[in-house]
Amino acid sequence: MTFFLATTDADFESAFTALLGMKREEAEDVDHAVAAIIADVRARGDAALIDLTARFDRMEVTADRLAFSPAEIEAEIAKVSPEDRAALELAAARIRDYHARQLPEDRSWTDAAGATLGWRWTPVSAAGLYVPGGLASYPSSVLMNAIPAKVAGVKRLVVTCPTPGGVVNPLVLLAARIAGVDTVYRVGGAQAVAALAYGTATIQPVDKITGPGNAYVAAAKRRVFGRVGIDMIAGPSEVLVIAEAGNDPDWIALDLLSQAEHDESAQAILITPDAAFGHAVAGAVAKRLETLDRRAIAGASWRDNGAVIVVRDLDEAAALANRIAPEHLEIMVDDAEALAAKIPHAGAIFLGPWTPEAIGDYVGGPNHVLPTARSARFSSGLNVLDFMKRTTMARMTPEALAAIGPAAERLAISESLQAHGLSVRARLDRLNRSE
Amino acid sequence: MTFFLATTDADFESAFTALLGMKREEAEDVDHAVAAIIADVRARGDAALIDLTARFDRMEVTADRLAFSPAEIEAEIAKVSPEDRAALELAAARIRDYHARQLPEDRSWTDAAGATLGWRWTPVSAAGLYVPGGLASYPSSVLMNAIPAKVAGVKRLVVTCPTPGGVVNPLVLLAARIAGVDTVYRVGGAQAVAALAYGTATIQPVDKITGPGNAYVAAAKRRVFGRVGIDMIAGPSEVLVIAEAGNDPDWIALDLLSQAEHDESAQAILITPDAAFGHAVAGAVAKRLETLDRRAIAGASWRDNGAVIVVRDLDEAAALANRIAPEHLEIMVDDAEALAAKIPHAGAIFLGPWTPEAIGDYVGGPNHVLPTARSARFSSGLNVLDFMKRTTMARMTPEALAAIGPAAERLAISESLQAHGLSVRARLDRLNRSE
Repeated sequence: MTFFLATTDADFESAFTALLGMKREEAEDVDHAVAAIIADVRARGDAALIDLTARFDRMEVTADRLAFSPAEIEAEIAKVSPEDRAALELAAARIRDYHARQLPEDRSWTDAAGATLGWRWTPVSAAGLYVPGGLASYPSSVLMNAIPAKVAGVKRLVVTCPTPGGVVNPLVLLAARIAGVDTVYRVGGAQAVAALAYGTATIQPVDKITGPGNAYVAAAKRRVFGRVGIDMIAGPSEVLVIAEAGNDPDWIALDLLSQAEHDESAQAILITPDAAFGHAVAGAVAKRLETLDRRAIAGASWRDNGAVIVVRDLDEAAALANRIAPEHLEIMVDDAEALAAKIPHAGAIFLGPWTPEAIGDYVGGPNHVLPTARSARFSSGLNVLDFMKRTTMARMTPEALAAIGPAAERLAISESLQAHGLSVRARLDRLNRSE
Repeated sequence: MTFFLATTDADFESAFTALLGMKREEAEDVDHAVAAIIADVRARGDAALIDLTARFDRMEVTADRLAFSPAEIEAEIAKVSPEDRAALELAAARIRDYHARQLPEDRSWTDAAGATLGWRWTPVSAAGLYVPGGLASYPSSVLMNAIPAKVAGVKRLVVTCPTPGGVVNPLVLLAARIAGVDTVYRVGGAQAVAALAYGTATIQPVDKITGPGNAYVAAAKRRVFGRVGIDMIAGPSEVLVIAEAGNDPDWIALDLLSQAEHDESAQAILITPDAAFGHAVAGAVAKRLETLDRRAIAGASWRDNGAVIVVRDLDEAAALANRIAPEHLEIMVDDAEALAAKIPHAGAIFLGPWTPEAIGDYVGGPNHVLPTARSARFSSGLNVLDFMKRTTMARMTPEALAAIGPAAERLAISESLQAHGLSVRARLDRLNRSE
């Protein structure tokens, strides 16, 4: 049963805490299997990839066919309709424009002591994007992962995408082409992550791995973290809608169902100050559910994880939203910007009734790879900085060293790091001698 | 034996690859023990912390004494000499000034379609800093972790620091005071990380955990990653010095030994185009080693992990440096800035002979928490953004939705996400009806 709570309920706090603490994903015991797969790929390289692809994707492949050839890609993308291509290109252009504004600036300055300080941003050299196959093979995710990497200046950009039973999504290949991906490999699962992290004869290792995946992919990413960078461990998708009465219940129902249809583990929550409106939305959800192709998935998500929460006022809504720290937050109240300002903990915010979350999934411009499972408290959606790193720079003059070196020497001695102190002292002594 | 390589050696490539691939830390089987510790803290809270502190830190403590009291802190910091205090304050001021420049800016713009887009940066609400006890209890690390958090605007900032046998470092408490830390807890190890991630009756959970630690702390951070944010999994420290003949071999020897004295697993490498100069530095290292208090540690590090690499020219030096991706890079050549521009993969760069790496450890201004073990290929030193997150913002007008909504609808349909498409279509239909 969908949760229907009100902050005026006597047991609200315990019910809300239960909602927050719900574990929406099975804790599959996959880590052991993933460790074995990674070890196999490290030991046997391409041969392991070929065996594991036969086993998990029911597909025979040879080392020279791990990558899609240019001819195969041409043949696949020729199947895409002009309208779908135009939509992908519009999406790509808008995503590119948004992310180009995230490019950071280098800085350099000279301070009062005469020290020149600063930093420099540079891209990672190579990145690998994991694209799921099958049900959740989303060309939009290819754009959302690849475009920030290209904007950052990543030189080599590859995609791994399983093709279970040999089934390929032409839109995925077209999206990769539009986004500037260099190579697409038809491997998936933990074995793809292992190949990207450690390399094989065919697949060169990368420095950063991003993209969503199932529990095996997530466990593999956690294991190779440190060897390479990873984006995040993605969980089921979530939306929180804060809406006042006066909105169209049907629009909000569809927005909630847009999350619910992703996955039975997805979560859609409405917070409203108006109980009657909350019931109206719940009714609209029930009605729309009847006609959806994915009503089994969306229905299970709404039934098991959905919630309507009635609050006394919008300040209460903001407080609950911050505790939920939603991946997606739609705000449909009179002054949406004012309410947004009170909610720091959210991955992406959609303001006003004309901004359904689906716009953000495809063509809005901001990234749709966003922090789930309350991690918006401490992390951000995928962005250009995820594909860059900052090097700090420092140059001392003799004068600067004379000014601040003695403090460094003292602290080094206090930490019993004698050579640290001596490395400063040797230089200070030279200065003193030459005075 | 310290490695002495030249790029003209017939077997250089295999020797260098071996150097790069050296595993400098024991792969201790600590993960199982850490899982049990985390489960214990989650189940028993403070009682587990008290038991584990007795066991690992040989210290009896009660729940009401897990935190240092203001009176205890006053008593401890009264022991610090005025000179040490002044040095810490100078360091804090310089670190604060450097990191304040890292504060990012919010952006908002309206594009040609009429969509208002942008983003907003906000701090995490609470952060926990792990500070090691015993040998590696460095007050400078307290400053380096806490000041970026304060600059970011973190509201609640706590430190956990083990005090084995009850031994406290007054400088650590003073550094915490100077940096604006709210509470210091006398717990350490995996149990401290578990308490910070999950909370106990006494220790409130935080959103982000940073700071170095031993293998247990590292394993615990990896396990709680996702529940909270973490900074990185720190490995042994490293320095790479690129120096031409003409530098003082003794200065460079001391810079190399500044890394070597940290830890037997630390690594110090010199790259030089001049073989004779390389030998002179090696000789100076041997001589300085005789007099160092920590000669056992520094000697083992230099013997087992140290290297002198002779190159044909500085371009070759840059290429090797990028493969090493050092945590610290000192450049002492004629045009240090020009060479630095060819080395994107480094955590922190120190330019010219007057910038020993020890300056960066204490008073330079840039952070000394830096990516180790080649992770400078994809990650950055600790900085203000590590304590902030970015929320993307979007507002469509009816006109904007009319312009870009149809592309979103089409892509949703192509991904079989019907409700996504309908959430856009319902709004577009309203617009069409009202035209």
